[in-house]
Amino acid sequence: MGEIRLIEIKEEILSDNKKDADTLRKKLKDQKTFLLNLMSSPGAGKTTLILKTIEHLKNRFRIGVLEADIDSMVDAEKVADAGIPAVQIRTGGFCHLDAAMVMKGLDAFDLSSLDLVIIENVGNLVCPAEFDTGAVKNAMILSVPEGDDKPLKYPLMFSICDVLLVNKIDYLSISDFDMKALHERVRTLNPGMRIIETSGKTGAGIDAWAQWLAEETHTFIT
Amino acid sequence: MGEIRLIEIKEEILSDNKKDADTLRKKLKDQKTFLLNLMSSPGAGKTTLILKTIEHLKNRFRIGVLEADIDSMVDAEKVADAGIPAVQIRTGGFCHLDAAMVMKGLDAFDLSSLDLVIIENVGNLVCPAEFDTGAVKNAMILSVPEGDDKPLKYPLMFSICDVLLVNKIDYLSISDFDMKALHERVRTLNPGMRIIETSGKTGAGIDAWAQWLAEETHTFIT
Repeated sequence: MGEIRLIEIKEEILSDNKKDADTLRKKLKDQKTFLLNLMSSPGAGKTTLILKTIEHLKNRFRIGVLEADIDSMVDAEKVADAGIPAVQIRTGGFCHLDAAMVMKGLDAFDLSSLDLVIIENVGNLVCPAEFDTGAVKNAMILSVPEGDDKPLKYPLMFSICDVLLVNKIDYLSISDFDMKALHERVRTLNPGMRIIETSGKTGAGIDAWAQWLAEETHTFIT
Repeated sequence: MGEIRLIEIKEEILSDNKKDADTLRKKLKDQKTFLLNLMSSPGAGKTTLILKTIEHLKNRFRIGVLEADIDSMVDAEKVADAGIPAVQIRTGGFCHLDAAMVMKGLDAFDLSSLDLVIIENVGNLVCPAEFDTGAVKNAMILSVPEGDDKPLKYPLMFSICDVLLVNKIDYLSISDFDMKALHERVRTLNPGMRIIETSGKTGAGIDAWAQWLAEETHTFIT
């Protein structure tokens, strides 16, 4: 066996973000708008899942979507095509959204006309986990092809989210993904995390997810 | 169709990194060590691909691996199990490696005893693309399940890499991934990019990739 050496690099802490996030959550409560922050790796299926969620909930809630993207507007265009107001934040190289960016994005909506805003964060399992956006709840997607070991590699993301959507379960048939091992790794990091298996392609599990989101939204805005 | 609003957030530029990277490349040339920077999303198959690459090239070159991970050492342990010296940089929340971090990592090797060092960068398509690590060549992996639209979403990564490995082609049979569309999107961003289709699982394409890496290494160190 070869040798391993370990070098630690300390993280700088950005200080005012938490305060901004708490201020935003209070404002959202006053305005009766639920804000969900959805995070994942690139290509895990965020946009497709948001479109399916809109289909399920658009007759029950007034929904908006805040899209974060480094350089394109393709996701915002898909949401707008579904008839839903979309705000695109082009982050110009920024790898995450913070609470100040989200506040700026929300200012472009008429919040009093919305019950639920979904943030599609930058596709990244690292940086978005470090910045409280001011959302009421955090959700993440892990897609089956990414592998069951991701809680070991990106523990903060799995720790700060309320819900984990294990997406692209239609790939399970040709994958060595171990769902039991995933559950155990998640439980170690975040015992209270809700885990829902989904497929944006087949629609499996979207009912359960939409029901969770509807209940959380209803509780917050009433 | 709903409305879309666009908000731009300007990026801060970190200035000294490019200078550090150029200094490192000069040092590597003097020491006759080739440095490859391998980047991808989480779960695209970097570690498996590195292990396969080691199998192909370990009798020809003296290889080391520089592992960047936020919080775990699991990848470095796999490399060390393959009998290859590994240096683990635990980034403590940092979302990328810069040239200074890589220099610090390389100091933990005896570079004069190595022909080829492979950096496994943090799993992230955003931040690592913004920081020149001092590597001689940049390679990236896009896995089939991530989708063929990723050049539209993460254009910088596709622009700065010399090689694209389209990995997990064993998933093509149940995916709607459009290889032709991917090639066209890549060509628009980076006409000179070499594209190699691979599967870490079946070993497909690893020969072509290892041959490219062997040629680049040989040219640089002789």
